[in-house]
Amino acid sequence: MENKMERIRLKSLQDLVVTPQEAASWIQDGMTLGLSGFTRAGDAKAVPHALVDRTRNIDGFKVNVFTGASLGFETDEKLAEAGIVNKRLPFQVDRTMRGKINEGDLLFVDQHLSHTAEVVRQGVLPKIDFAIVEALAITEDGMIIPTTSVGNSSIFVEHAKNVIVEINTAQPDFEGMHDIYDIGMYGERVPVQMTKPSDRLGTVGIPVDPAKIKGIVFNHHLDSPSPNEGPDAETETMAANLLDFLRNEVREGRLTNELAPLQAGIGSQANAVLYGLLDSEFENLEVYSEVLQDAMFDLIDAGKVNFASCASITISEEKMKTVFENPEPYKDKIVLRPQEISNLPEVIRRMGLIAINTALEFDIYGNVNSTHVTGTKMMNGIGGSGDFARNSRIAIFVTKSVAKGGDISSVVPFVSHVDHTEHDVDVLVTEHGYADLRGLAPRERAPKIIQNCAHPMYREQLMEYFNEACERGGQTPHILEKAFSWHTRLNETGTMLEPELVR
Amino acid sequence: MENKMERIRLKSLQDLVVTPQEAASWIQDGMTLGLSGFTRAGDAKAVPHALVDRTRNIDGFKVNVFTGASLGFETDEKLAEAGIVNKRLPFQVDRTMRGKINEGDLLFVDQHLSHTAEVVRQGVLPKIDFAIVEALAITEDGMIIPTTSVGNSSIFVEHAKNVIVEINTAQPDFEGMHDIYDIGMYGERVPVQMTKPSDRLGTVGIPVDPAKIKGIVFNHHLDSPSPNEGPDAETETMAANLLDFLRNEVREGRLTNELAPLQAGIGSQANAVLYGLLDSEFENLEVYSEVLQDAMFDLIDAGKVNFASCASITISEEKMKTVFENPEPYKDKIVLRPQEISNLPEVIRRMGLIAINTALEFDIYGNVNSTHVTGTKMMNGIGGSGDFARNSRIAIFVTKSVAKGGDISSVVPFVSHVDHTEHDVDVLVTEHGYADLRGLAPRERAPKIIQNCAHPMYREQLMEYFNEACERGGQTPHILEKAFSWHTRLNETGTMLEPELVR
Repeated sequence: MENKMERIRLKSLQDLVVTPQEAASWIQDGMTLGLSGFTRAGDAKAVPHALVDRTRNIDGFKVNVFTGASLGFETDEKLAEAGIVNKRLPFQVDRTMRGKINEGDLLFVDQHLSHTAEVVRQGVLPKIDFAIVEALAITEDGMIIPTTSVGNSSIFVEHAKNVIVEINTAQPDFEGMHDIYDIGMYGERVPVQMTKPSDRLGTVGIPVDPAKIKGIVFNHHLDSPSPNEGPDAETETMAANLLDFLRNEVREGRLTNELAPLQAGIGSQANAVLYGLLDSEFENLEVYSEVLQDAMFDLIDAGKVNFASCASITISEEKMKTVFENPEPYKDKIVLRPQEISNLPEVIRRMGLIAINTALEFDIYGNVNSTHVTGTKMMNGIGGSGDFARNSRIAIFVTKSVAKGGDISSVVPFVSHVDHTEHDVDVLVTEHGYADLRGLAPRERAPKIIQNCAHPMYREQLMEYFNEACERGGQTPHILEKAFSWHTRLNETGTMLEPELVR
Repeated sequence: MENKMERIRLKSLQDLVVTPQEAASWIQDGMTLGLSGFTRAGDAKAVPHALVDRTRNIDGFKVNVFTGASLGFETDEKLAEAGIVNKRLPFQVDRTMRGKINEGDLLFVDQHLSHTAEVVRQGVLPKIDFAIVEALAITEDGMIIPTTSVGNSSIFVEHAKNVIVEINTAQPDFEGMHDIYDIGMYGERVPVQMTKPSDRLGTVGIPVDPAKIKGIVFNHHLDSPSPNEGPDAETETMAANLLDFLRNEVREGRLTNELAPLQAGIGSQANAVLYGLLDSEFENLEVYSEVLQDAMFDLIDAGKVNFASCASITISEEKMKTVFENPEPYKDKIVLRPQEISNLPEVIRRMGLIAINTALEFDIYGNVNSTHVTGTKMMNGIGGSGDFARNSRIAIFVTKSVAKGGDISSVVPFVSHVDHTEHDVDVLVTEHGYADLRGLAPRERAPKIIQNCAHPMYREQLMEYFNEACERGGQTPHILEKAFSWHTRLNETGTMLEPELVR
């Protein structure tokens, strides 16, 4: 059996091993924690749970919790239930935490995932007292080797007062697959010398001043698996529509069958689109994304994807069995980077990505809501969708045309919250078709979106709104007193359908 | 007297001189024109007017008109009046054209100013039949030397089928002050090797295949001057508030008195902010902006600004007299670049700019409307504000707290159009104070914006909305059926004030 202490290769640090409970005892009311973890992968698992156990009954105890993105292992749920979080950023997906956020019990700052490092560096946010990061090992020269994500770990470690390392002996042997690079402080920055996804910029681990490491704990738990949702009939059709768009780009001479580096957001819809590539004519693909999901490994296995860059690997239990137990075949095909680099505008624009992200709803002029249900209630957060959409060669948003059995139309007159403006949205895709909005004025966009993307049951209602709005004039015609009537009707009657249209 | 022909230093091109009327006769119905011109500076003046004269009575004659930004010389007015424009992009400021846009007579595509070059390069827009660009001269080796702006001229020339050069003998001797650089096609791009505003990347003129030059015309007209609006009491107070914010950043150790490279949008409010720097302790400043206005030259003259990079110089008649007649002192202090480079996310983020732009209205959560009056009617366009705000170190938006003598509040419950989302807005400034929103959740933002930025006459009404919305819950509390009630009240009653509050 493995001697866990051998993971601490810088021997002088071996004396720092403590229990999670002891490490948690150092965390005081009012402190700010920077946790590893991005889309459930590579999250610190032991100390946050010990902290919850220690403090859930301490009246008024609160900490700020900063992460890469979402955590797994029910950590956000337990933190929220214990009521010990003052401020949380930049992303979460937990149902309980979401409830607390929307009740106003917990302050949530929804940030572009590439922006968090900037505000940490600038000193605008509270100083991080403890960075708590999961690791495979600490090297002889004192570098922390991350596990299945990098996220914000390196920037947290660099700017924290103290560091706690959680060595997770259950994680796969990904050593050598990380590329840690810091763009540095303003005034000292130089161009990021990357022109393709496989370029390496930095070190295989996170450099750290050993004096900042206050404790090391061990844990042995796999990441929370991603739900293994295969495509359904609608997401398959959506994927086919998106491939039709790409084929047309090839016909027009704007792309080749090798496309351009791809980014795909998290979730079953983006995953379905990637599955759609599996049996397509597209080949020699490259990927520059945040998260790699199951479909990506199938694409690599099939020889469709030559290289994939990411900030995190989030896969199903089934896929973990093959990938985690034998990562060797992927070691020269995947690199994990800090999320500031995976989502960096400079690199995204230089490479000319095709970005595929999921919308909650979009409006007839192409504005996209990614975050707020009926304008007020937070789902997860904007994540990296803005980093990619703004700077990509082609910014694509996908969604099913209706939700809740048809009571909610994903195409509305006016989105109830704007995350991506008309300026940043190129192509919209639903199971009914795609609308290519590039170079179109708002009055050209609306009929195209309605006819190509909306569910047939809502098309007439949408065209009525648009036509009535056009009578009033304007670059972007609207009837402000009716703009949100679909959302208020939903709240009042349970459906966005107008009364005479309800079946 | 100058021999105009000497401006055509590549002698073989001297035979191409024609009248503007002859050049205009080449332009056929359905064609797409790429005109020089950015914020009234360096615009093609002769051929567009000759085109209007020739075609205003031709039934159904239409062309697409692409530019850098706004044109001067009443060109947009005449184009709009003649009714010969099918599609216009990416920016305009003309009253007549605005009217046609809002009536739906003219298609306007409102783009981030750094994005136009990308869509031209990709071939998404109609191919440019004629690039018509103003020049100081054509060099011996066939480069076109721009005048008072670069804008999109270089990308238009590169991708147009034909080029018409308008040599303007009235323009100042700016030769050597331009730096023309093309980031190139996807797949071939390399890092833009710029780390400070004074770095040079390319050539002093626009390289062109001489075979593409179809004609050369002469003109002799100064640019339309910028209105010389000095600061008023409110913009002076606004500037003082912004300086207070910057001083606080210095006190907190996040900036020094040298600040960071500055960007300031066009208009009297941004100009006033720059005037505010004149008598401040801030020094050794650098500027990386789109447009240089009057105040910038005063800052350079006073030794406050060491270097300024821009895409255009737009100054008043008075300032033209000193700067244009003796540009020598500015030749090593100013560089003019293509707008894709002046507005490039890569460079803006690397340098860590402080970006100051004007809002039309903002809401209690920090979303900004830069373009649409009451959600529908286009003013000018988003311009470069999004390029800068998203990628800057500190994204600041300024506006007076009320308009129309108090009937319009610039602070509203929900902006009627979103150009900049809460994710991209750091600091809001009015004549009443500033709200630093960095690191704040929406529920923290609202009271701060209302108390610090709104006009006192609207604060109670705003707090009432916010408090009522909070009772309903949500990350971003709203009452959707009342969200636009301020705008609809304005339309119906002439004021956003609630009836009981109207004086």
